[in-house]
Amino acid sequence: MLRIALAQINPIVGDLDGNARKILDFVQEAKAGGAHLAAFPELVLTGYPPEDLLLKDHFVRANLKALNNLAKKISGIAAIVGFVDRDSGGKIYNAAAVISEKKIRGIYRKQDLPNYGVFDEKRYFTAGDKNPVFVLNGVAFAVNICEDIWRDETAICKKQVRAGAKFLINISSSPFEAGKIDDRIHLVRRRAKETKAPVCYVNLVGGQDELVFDGASMAASAKGVIIASGRQFAEDIVLVDLDVAIVKKKRAGTIHLGNVKPSGGDNIIVREACALSMVEQIHHALLLATRDYIRKNGFKKVLIGLSGGIDSAVVAAVAAEAIGRENVIGVSMPSRFNAEVTKSDARKLAENLGIVFKEISIEPIFETYLNVMTPHFKDRLQDCAEENIQARIRGNILMALSNKFNWLVLTTGNKSEMAVGYCTLYGDMSGGFAVIKDVPKTIVYKIAKDINRDKELIPQSVIDRVPSAELRENQTDQDSLPPYDLLDDIIERYVGGHESLQEISRKHDPQTVKRVRHLIDANEYKRRQSPPGPKVTSRAFGKDWRLPITNQYRD
Amino acid sequence: MLRIALAQINPIVGDLDGNARKILDFVQEAKAGGAHLAAFPELVLTGYPPEDLLLKDHFVRANLKALNNLAKKISGIAAIVGFVDRDSGGKIYNAAAVISEKKIRGIYRKQDLPNYGVFDEKRYFTAGDKNPVFVLNGVAFAVNICEDIWRDETAICKKQVRAGAKFLINISSSPFEAGKIDDRIHLVRRRAKETKAPVCYVNLVGGQDELVFDGASMAASAKGVIIASGRQFAEDIVLVDLDVAIVKKKRAGTIHLGNVKPSGGDNIIVREACALSMVEQIHHALLLATRDYIRKNGFKKVLIGLSGGIDSAVVAAVAAEAIGRENVIGVSMPSRFNAEVTKSDARKLAENLGIVFKEISIEPIFETYLNVMTPHFKDRLQDCAEENIQARIRGNILMALSNKFNWLVLTTGNKSEMAVGYCTLYGDMSGGFAVIKDVPKTIVYKIAKDINRDKELIPQSVIDRVPSAELRENQTDQDSLPPYDLLDDIIERYVGGHESLQEISRKHDPQTVKRVRHLIDANEYKRRQSPPGPKVTSRAFGKDWRLPITNQYRD
Repeated sequence: MLRIALAQINPIVGDLDGNARKILDFVQEAKAGGAHLAAFPELVLTGYPPEDLLLKDHFVRANLKALNNLAKKISGIAAIVGFVDRDSGGKIYNAAAVISEKKIRGIYRKQDLPNYGVFDEKRYFTAGDKNPVFVLNGVAFAVNICEDIWRDETAICKKQVRAGAKFLINISSSPFEAGKIDDRIHLVRRRAKETKAPVCYVNLVGGQDELVFDGASMAASAKGVIIASGRQFAEDIVLVDLDVAIVKKKRAGTIHLGNVKPSGGDNIIVREACALSMVEQIHHALLLATRDYIRKNGFKKVLIGLSGGIDSAVVAAVAAEAIGRENVIGVSMPSRFNAEVTKSDARKLAENLGIVFKEISIEPIFETYLNVMTPHFKDRLQDCAEENIQARIRGNILMALSNKFNWLVLTTGNKSEMAVGYCTLYGDMSGGFAVIKDVPKTIVYKIAKDINRDKELIPQSVIDRVPSAELRENQTDQDSLPPYDLLDDIIERYVGGHESLQEISRKHDPQTVKRVRHLIDANEYKRRQSPPGPKVTSRAFGKDWRLPITNQYRD
Repeated sequence: MLRIALAQINPIVGDLDGNARKILDFVQEAKAGGAHLAAFPELVLTGYPPEDLLLKDHFVRANLKALNNLAKKISGIAAIVGFVDRDSGGKIYNAAAVISEKKIRGIYRKQDLPNYGVFDEKRYFTAGDKNPVFVLNGVAFAVNICEDIWRDETAICKKQVRAGAKFLINISSSPFEAGKIDDRIHLVRRRAKETKAPVCYVNLVGGQDELVFDGASMAASAKGVIIASGRQFAEDIVLVDLDVAIVKKKRAGTIHLGNVKPSGGDNIIVREACALSMVEQIHHALLLATRDYIRKNGFKKVLIGLSGGIDSAVVAAVAAEAIGRENVIGVSMPSRFNAEVTKSDARKLAENLGIVFKEISIEPIFETYLNVMTPHFKDRLQDCAEENIQARIRGNILMALSNKFNWLVLTTGNKSEMAVGYCTLYGDMSGGFAVIKDVPKTIVYKIAKDINRDKELIPQSVIDRVPSAELRENQTDQDSLPPYDLLDDIIERYVGGHESLQEISRKHDPQTVKRVRHLIDANEYKRRQSPPGPKVTSRAFGKDWRLPITNQYRD
């Protein structure tokens, strides 16, 4: 019997020393839990993804030095640690070090490098081509890394079992997206069944710019039954006992890690697998992403413009839950176009959440702008120019407070707006982190409901009111846009599915589809200047959406 | 003897029909010039780079359809056209179609896919592995694509000559950067000498978002002598006569294009190769990039905030030269902190350039902001918050005019500022296109000199004055920053060279290096929200700079 500890931890990109310390802490915890082997996620030492830090040779060298120092401190247990390997020619590899008794005993190099969606691994890494088998306490196993387990074509798990491995450990940094956890569970079970070998899967936790890693590590028995599960969206150490055959004959080329004898450890109490609903998962993803962006970038407090609408309400609630209500400042910035009820709703929301509340009217500034600009506008009719001035005054006020007090501004735009450009560049798009940037409006409502599950935090009137930007008299979103359920479906098909005008028009009115497609294309320049926000869908406006701004394709 | 036409044209990404029409126009021109064969650049049919348009299956299909229609219209000459090929399994290839007598006779698929710097080709394409040889009028040749010619390791040119090719044609979309043309000439000459075969090189022209393609097509004789050169930064058709041996024996596997008999064509007058200085090249790159961004995105006029400083002066001069002075509006937006001389210099610049000039004082708006914000700033001292308010008022005024009149705002920040964050997000960073974003301040001065070569367009006092943001009393850039020659060298080492703190400190004061490094890292979030601007150096803040915002690495 071997006891494996799946250590799903939350490193910080670039913080080599801090990450090494955290790894050591969890190694200690794994030993205390009686584990023979502790497995850490992909590139845990550097944080994931390190992006172009990998092009700095000194960074790669610093990571190797950190790994060597780390190895010297690990004994009485074996450990698998993700790091950046480098060969004598200077080529680098996404790799796993297998450590025991203070030494790096062997290295596995990732074979299948993802270079699609949010991934750019072929920009940096050379693919490995070896399947080393490691033997610990007489039990043979193999290690592979993230993508290595996903594709049938490469059949890496099969090769490793054929090479003698009796169980497999996959170390991952697999970003969250709604629904992906089911794919992962299915995958891990399938690989176990196919190879008739238990499969352990350990995944990173934490927010890193636009990605959120959700943990949810797991192990499947040789029959493909999930026998252990880690928490989703939190650090965790998952212990799992594997009853695997001991190697009888020594096989050439296997790497022997020796024997470890854990001193501690009780029987494992298997926890229920996490079973968050899709909306709860997105809600948790926003919390973790927001908390980590704030914390890892050294901010203490955040600032949010409260319009009295649903988007800023959800963002404020998420922020308060993520970093504590005492660290959240809400600012209402009414103009002549704001209804009394939205102003009072903004205040009520702040009261409900217990956050700091300020009200700063933009009227005197707006009036001055109109006086200054009107002569230059000649006799043109009022249009979006006057609307955007208001949004940009609000942006300027938020940024002024941010600059004065070092509060991070959280942006409140949702994915539906970001798609069709129903937002003002340098106005409501101003800020450091765009919490619900990848959340379609229809899902924003569902998250609001989840936030209010136990108690009415977001005033019901905010949820019930017809959405409006309140930038002119009697404006509603639906003056300019199709209803949100319809809009969100078109966006999902066009953005998520890369469907053509013709394909989408089979499901929706062709004129509407054409108009929405035009808006999405024409607003690429705005999105290019938007702050990052957490990816929660299969295709976010970020690294996995690289459309040209200058683009005359029209289908 | 074969006459080759190297048709360096300027397509628009996504404009399949328009690009096909332009190809046909140049095919006609090549025929009129007596060419047997016309070669067009890499992916000329789709424009380069099409980025994630390539993930749309309908886009790839539309490109195939456009190619087939195009082929039907080509006769009396052979043509090589870059397009996206697709196999029966749905894999796509960066490919060249070889067309004659209204048919696609053969296809070459790019073998070496660049996935570094600004390139993401492995995100989309599968690599080809074949070296077909084509025979036209009895002469055997091979085609390869851009990167295929660059790396010694892959030795594609050698393989093609070994397969029977008597000359080679490389079709490229090679983005400009200062100095690269010399590398290209060296490369083409070297491949010709190595293989003892003439090499023809045709390169794209035009601006596409942050890339500029500079043309400068060429041909080298079998001895490695450059025998023909195309213009740099402009469309052109370069005719070159190759005196190459006729195939005696038919070799298996060669693709026969038949014989063409050109009807027209005089003797070729070989032009002098372009010999622009480095600064002139950058100047021309900015002109082409700016003109194409404006034109290809459907704008007619541009708007520039004129501070009276060197950056906005250079941008205004470039804009006037690029699209005509009648299409450029300069706005001076003085505050209490602007010296009389900078205000009058802004006006004088506009007069010299002959552009429209407006002056809009920001004082009344700034004063209103201070009245509104002071109570919320409590008893904090004046700091960058008050400075940034001014920059953001100017941003709002420019954007209001932009929204009202559909003028594109050109941003005026240079690379030195962008690196260390000496610029205001949503303030002077507002705009659609950042003309000198990749031009270090020291080079901005040199471009100013180039602009003034024949006539003082930029007032000499603008060039001579100590740079200042004029956001507080008696401010100069050098209050906060090291001298620009020193700063630019540190930036070039840290950004361009990915050097470590330690390495740069061998050349510069370690404290200064540390401070600059900190500023560059800490301002990643600003750069992420900046408008695109043309890459002119070896590493621009754009696709070839993918550093995480959340990043604790400190060396």
